[in-house]
Amino acid sequence: MRGFAVKFSLLLFFFLFISQSALAARKTFKPPKPCKRFVLYLHDLLLEKNELSNSTSARMLNASKLGNYQFGSLFVFNDPMTKDQNLHSPPVATAQGFYFYDYKTDYSAWFAYTLVFNSTEYKGSLSIMGADLMMEKTRDLSVVGGTGDFFMARGIATFSTDAMEGIKYFRVKMDIKLYECY
Amino acid sequence: MRGFAVKFSLLLFFFLFISQSALAARKTFKPPKPCKRFVLYLHDLLLEKNELSNSTSARMLNASKLGNYQFGSLFVFNDPMTKDQNLHSPPVATAQGFYFYDYKTDYSAWFAYTLVFNSTEYKGSLSIMGADLMMEKTRDLSVVGGTGDFFMARGIATFSTDAMEGIKYFRVKMDIKLYECY
Amino acid sequence: MRGFAVKFSLLLFFFLFISQSALAARKTFKPPKPCKRFVLYLHDLLLEKNELSNSTSARMLNASKLGNYQFGSLFVFNDPMTKDQNLHSPPVATAQGFYFYDYKTDYSAWFAYTLVFNSTEYKGSLSIMGADLMMEKTRDLSVVGGTGDFFMARGIATFSTDAMEGIKYFRVKMDIKLYECY
Repeated sequence: MRGFAVKFSLLLFFFLFISQSALAARKTFKPPKPCKRFVLYLHDLLLEKNELSNSTSARMLNASKLGNYQFGSLFVFNDPMTKDQNLHSPPVATAQGFYFYDYKTDYSAWFAYTLVFNSTEYKGSLSIMGADLMMEKTRDLSVVGGTGDFFMARGIATFSTDAMEGIKYFRVKMDIKLYECY
Repeated sequence: MRGFAVKFSLLLFFFLFISQSALAARKTFKPPKPCKRFVLYLHDLLLEKNELSNSTSARMLNASKLGNYQFGSLFVFNDPMTKDQNLHSPPVATAQGFYFYDYKTDYSAWFAYTLVFNSTEYKGSLSIMGADLMMEKTRDLSVVGGTGDFFMARGIATFSTDAMEGIKYFRVKMDIKLYECY
Repeated sequence: MRGFAVKFSLLLFFFLFISQSALAARKTFKPPKPCKRFVLYLHDLLLEKNELSNSTSARMLNASKLGNYQFGSLFVFNDPMTKDQNLHSPPVATAQGFYFYDYKTDYSAWFAYTLVFNSTEYKGSLSIMGADLMMEKTRDLSVVGGTGDFFMARGIATFSTDAMEGIKYFRVKMDIKLYECY
């Protein structure tokens, strides 16, 4: 019976290990490896400072009197997303949504938008929301849902400002990491 | 001992199967069968073209100058949801939220809203956001959260335009499929 | 062998129990114990009735003509969150986002915002959206995403109105329960 007891203990350990793995998939404390990851650049051309024909966003509300950083100013956008920094590269998605400034002592914004993919590579969407603390070098927003090729996805979109030409043009690098994929 | 070894192997297989099932619930690659599904119709009566008393939505922002499809025009709504196409059927939920048009060359909108259920059948809410590409026959938005009977739910809401009478009235069929239920 | 069979049955029960627990984390029908929970108080000081210097929110849209409860009125806020009811306690987070009233026959609002934490205790964010049915004693909104120390979190934020001084000041108790933690 002793040989058996040893084998049995090993199996017991093995079962416990498997069961724990199933739990671990929900309980990792360090960001795990994303199940999907890609970097895209958003290009925003504001109507106020661009010609009508090539503008991709419009200011819909003027700022309140709070602070000196456009608190409350709201913009609707439908911006192209490209794989590199070139505004004229073929867009792989469009970012459709809005943002508004919401900070009294520096520029900071709040975003909610959907990335709409309709290329040979991907069809579907990712919806994203969160605070864009523009004074930080990088900031994380939440990917809260996905459809199509991104069915039920969740993850993190890390923003970094890649270019800022007054209010005429800005470019944001979005490092999109999905941690739940189906 | 041989009979025992066979039985033990079967049990081993059985344990592995159970453990794998727990993982599989998170990693299916084809849209699985929803854990809950229902079809509801949203009825929107815009104040501008209806009497004050029966209106369910209001235009809060006029369009920008981008394109000819109401880019930036924003609406707040509190619309009844019914089980069939009849506006006068007893509502089973209300859809509370907003949408705005965000496309230069056709009608397309972005929605964020919460379905509030308060019937004998369901109590609770589902929050939904995403792009409503109105030129498509069907379009998927993300169900990003739920409360009450829909505690922690996630899923997809598939929109299809069911009726459109100018800006006076529109009806959207929403096929709501939940893939994460508690 | 009989003593062994008994022990084996106990182990079998034990393995099944562990495996079921892994499943239960996804399929419990009663709200399970949160993996993280904390209560915070939001303090909102509206510009219209406060001095410019201490205001934390601004009305960005005036109400429509629907009903008598500010239907469509929209506010952008950047409100401090404290651990107790005292407005002057050191804030542990800020709530950045917007809400609008959306009900014709009573006060009721729709919120979308992000809690931004930047203290020694927590760094990161939680994004929240849903209907705030103000006529109810408590109401549940959805925590739809998290970043940093709240990486990929989901849960429920239960609102209760803690103070309401006209439109000058309101305080909301937010009982935040996370049910998915990494």
